[in-house]
Amino acid sequence: MEIFPKARLAEDKKIELESKLMLGPVDIAYKTYGQLNKDKSNAILICHALTGDQFVASTNPITNEPGWWTEIVGKNKIIDPDKHYIICSNVLGGCMGTSGPTQLDNTGKELGMQFPVITIGDMVSVQERLINYLGIDKLLCIIGGSMGGMQVLEWLRKFPYRMNAVASISTSYKNSAQNIAFHEVGRQAIISDPFWNNGNYYNMQNKPVNGLSVARMLAHITYLSPKKMQIKFGRMLQDIDSLTYEFKNDFRVQNYLHYQGDKFTNRFDANSYLFLTKAMDYFDMEYNSGGDLPVAFRRGDAKIYLASFTSDWLFPVSDILELEKVMKSVKRDVTCKVFKSDNGHDAFLLFEPEFQNSLNNFISNI
Amino acid sequence: MEIFPKARLAEDKKIELESKLMLGPVDIAYKTYGQLNKDKSNAILICHALTGDQFVASTNPITNEPGWWTEIVGKNKIIDPDKHYIICSNVLGGCMGTSGPTQLDNTGKELGMQFPVITIGDMVSVQERLINYLGIDKLLCIIGGSMGGMQVLEWLRKFPYRMNAVASISTSYKNSAQNIAFHEVGRQAIISDPFWNNGNYYNMQNKPVNGLSVARMLAHITYLSPKKMQIKFGRMLQDIDSLTYEFKNDFRVQNYLHYQGDKFTNRFDANSYLFLTKAMDYFDMEYNSGGDLPVAFRRGDAKIYLASFTSDWLFPVSDILELEKVMKSVKRDVTCKVFKSDNGHDAFLLFEPEFQNSLNNFISNI
Repeated sequence: MEIFPKARLAEDKKIELESKLMLGPVDIAYKTYGQLNKDKSNAILICHALTGDQFVASTNPITNEPGWWTEIVGKNKIIDPDKHYIICSNVLGGCMGTSGPTQLDNTGKELGMQFPVITIGDMVSVQERLINYLGIDKLLCIIGGSMGGMQVLEWLRKFPYRMNAVASISTSYKNSAQNIAFHEVGRQAIISDPFWNNGNYYNMQNKPVNGLSVARMLAHITYLSPKKMQIKFGRMLQDIDSLTYEFKNDFRVQNYLHYQGDKFTNRFDANSYLFLTKAMDYFDMEYNSGGDLPVAFRRGDAKIYLASFTSDWLFPVSDILELEKVMKSVKRDVTCKVFKSDNGHDAFLLFEPEFQNSLNNFISNI
Repeated sequence: MEIFPKARLAEDKKIELESKLMLGPVDIAYKTYGQLNKDKSNAILICHALTGDQFVASTNPITNEPGWWTEIVGKNKIIDPDKHYIICSNVLGGCMGTSGPTQLDNTGKELGMQFPVITIGDMVSVQERLINYLGIDKLLCIIGGSMGGMQVLEWLRKFPYRMNAVASISTSYKNSAQNIAFHEVGRQAIISDPFWNNGNYYNMQNKPVNGLSVARMLAHITYLSPKKMQIKFGRMLQDIDSLTYEFKNDFRVQNYLHYQGDKFTNRFDANSYLFLTKAMDYFDMEYNSGGDLPVAFRRGDAKIYLASFTSDWLFPVSDILELEKVMKSVKRDVTCKVFKSDNGHDAFLLFEPEFQNSLNNFISNI
């Protein structure tokens, strides 16, 4: 049963990946909200983060989870289906319908690790084909946070004339050494799981759920600020009055991580996690621009909005300020905002009224 | 072959653990440097960190690694065998000769997970027996960093009259939610490894090296500051000129983590890692003092030295400042120093001249 709207792209003209491999045909699973207006000028593309999907503002029919950005997207919200034609597609390498390791080969077998290593730029190349397929020449805005924000930056580099504005939030122009390190630990947890079986687990009874769960537990720590963790969990015990002196999850924070890890394995593919974290690690716009970062932003005249949150330690404020400086050096129209928050990297997904007011101003005035 | 000096303690009078279980006999493996003077007033006890051992200033005969604190301890160093009688023992629950999960039961089989859950306070109770065994009434100083610093604080609480001075460095009076979370991920990596086998792997061909390696890789990230990682590794490639677009360790930081992870599995016991991280997670002097932290430090008149480093995000500066405040509230003679450093949590082990001068002043003036 095919429950996603899907476009089959690049059947005729394959997509050249940054690795120089040619990819196609490519399935891209996407979701739209609202109507494209007559002059096709109200389309907003939303780019999702590492473990997001196309269901930005509505229930994911597979997981029954609510949309992941309902703070921003929805009726009477900043991005509003009554005003905008909202497009969100599952990224290349993802596991919610777009081509990735779960895609079937000619024999009906999942590609697994035969899928090619892809980059953030490749994700964007596929999105551009989708925009063509939908008959849109110029997007009103492209917006995303975290890995989504990386995609927004790549749009500016690769297709600088295809949008009127962009908003890139809680991200960086390159993945840091510490972020690569955390990803490596997560990947290692997955590939050390014997049930990962070199990526050939799709038809096996046992899947690498332990490894994937450990990877997710670790990632979750990096999404919260230490202060938020201390406030939310501190050293609170879980359903006990005193320490057990046994190897149990005495502390609520342990329980929380296990819950998050387990839940994740029901909705995410372990190989996909490998490919997407690898794509993030490869992300370096300086490298992509031959060592000259300003080159990446020299073309185009889209208005640019950047935002970061003080307690985000995965993509710290200093990264976005550096980006602002580079963009200003090539005379871009850039608005850069830093918001005080304890919500850590997850802040862009949560209730942050100052950020939301600011973003609303930006989107309204494009 | 017994290569460690070992004391067999608590054969007659067992040690009551904080869990109320009685433990004994207990082997404690220790190393001394220098000579105890006539009035037994020059003894300094050094408490090691999570993965340290008794070989503080000399080669570990098992691993052939040099002493772990040669910056501070050695001839003409701050703690000097020509002046001091230096004692360092492997902690309870450790794997370098002191009782722990690798200890043999009556049938000659390793205890594994049959070893009881122990606490930082229990480690200190065992150290106190060693000090008695060595015939020392009052230590000149007790010093340690990280988990070693926790032990120092527990000495103040449990045996406040047994020392003239203490130095507790790069630590906290309680383990934070974030630290518990990181430990939980590390433990989960170990127990998810099928070769862990509920802790019964000692006589198996395969040991839980993958899980232990993942745990160590993760821990290593937390020991370095993000800035240090960026300076040391950044996005430097490992022995390649350009990205491979394969699942290889393209980046030097990946290679570094794998090296650290692999090396660790040759010298450390997976069960021991579980017990010691659990002990750290249980560490909360407020809880130990019935919710009234100042009570922990009300007795005794030892001079207290506290130190922290600005880029330590595992035990941030704010923790040590809070501790200073509490100690001052009960009129303790406390010197608290904060040092600017990019070396992160590992700073106390590395070349930090300002810290070393300051510590030297403190030790010289006891």
